[in-house]
Amino acid sequence: MWPDFRSQCPVASALDIVGDKWTLVVLRTIFAGRHRYGDLAEMPEAISSNILADRLERLESYGLITKAPYQQNPVRHEYRLTKRGADLLPVLQQLATWAARHIPGRWSAPRWFSEGKPEDFYPAKS
Amino acid sequence: MWPDFRSQCPVASALDIVGDKWTLVVLRTIFAGRHRYGDLAEMPEAISSNILADRLERLESYGLITKAPYQQNPVRHEYRLTKRGADLLPVLQQLATWAARHIPGRWSAPRWFSEGKPEDFYPAKS
Repeated sequence: MWPDFRSQCPVASALDIVGDKWTLVVLRTIFAGRHRYGDLAEMPEAISSNILADRLERLESYGLITKAPYQQNPVRHEYRLTKRGADLLPVLQQLATWAARHIPGRWSAPRWFSEGKPEDFYPAKS
Repeated sequence: MWPDFRSQCPVASALDIVGDKWTLVVLRTIFAGRHRYGDLAEMPEAISSNILADRLERLESYGLITKAPYQQNPVRHEYRLTKRGADLLPVLQQLATWAARHIPGRWSAPRWFSEGKPEDFYPAKS
């Protein structure tokens, strides 16, 4: 399930999982309540379809999201955060805090994001 | 100085700057007190020399580190965090916290790291 890690450093290891331009942007979009492929594909950053499909597959293989069908014929899936995925919220929040402070003209973060806790996004018990 | 951003989202914009496998690993090594090229090249993740040189150049162009000569003939440089770079410490801390929780067998973070504040790493006033 996990890749080969470059070292046992927790920072480097986390980046072996989420260290690229797109993985955390896809995750942000799922935090924002977009769960279906078509909704995710419409994110403002214009992600290409093959990159989106690849990142969703990787996120699922690392246990950060789950994939489940919501319709048959044709089958369509939706993607939901696991606890492991939801626990990345503080990373996203700190990235946003840094950008807000150092890059002019960024959108301000909505309250559900800046004041959210990972637990708010944990999967509902069934 | 800044790149073209994919959007004005602060998360996506931060990742336009630091969203890759190596940038934050190089920054971590500078936080750890390795300031010279030769010391940075010896990090346990076995970074290649061309990637290290590229990331240092990018970090400098984005104002996250400064580069200054510490010796002449041949000239050698050292790299120091700026405030903007030091302000990424909480991102590194949250990545490490997540990895410690979800990836078995990681090194435990030293105290200067887990309890550090960005201000502790701001450049000394001269």
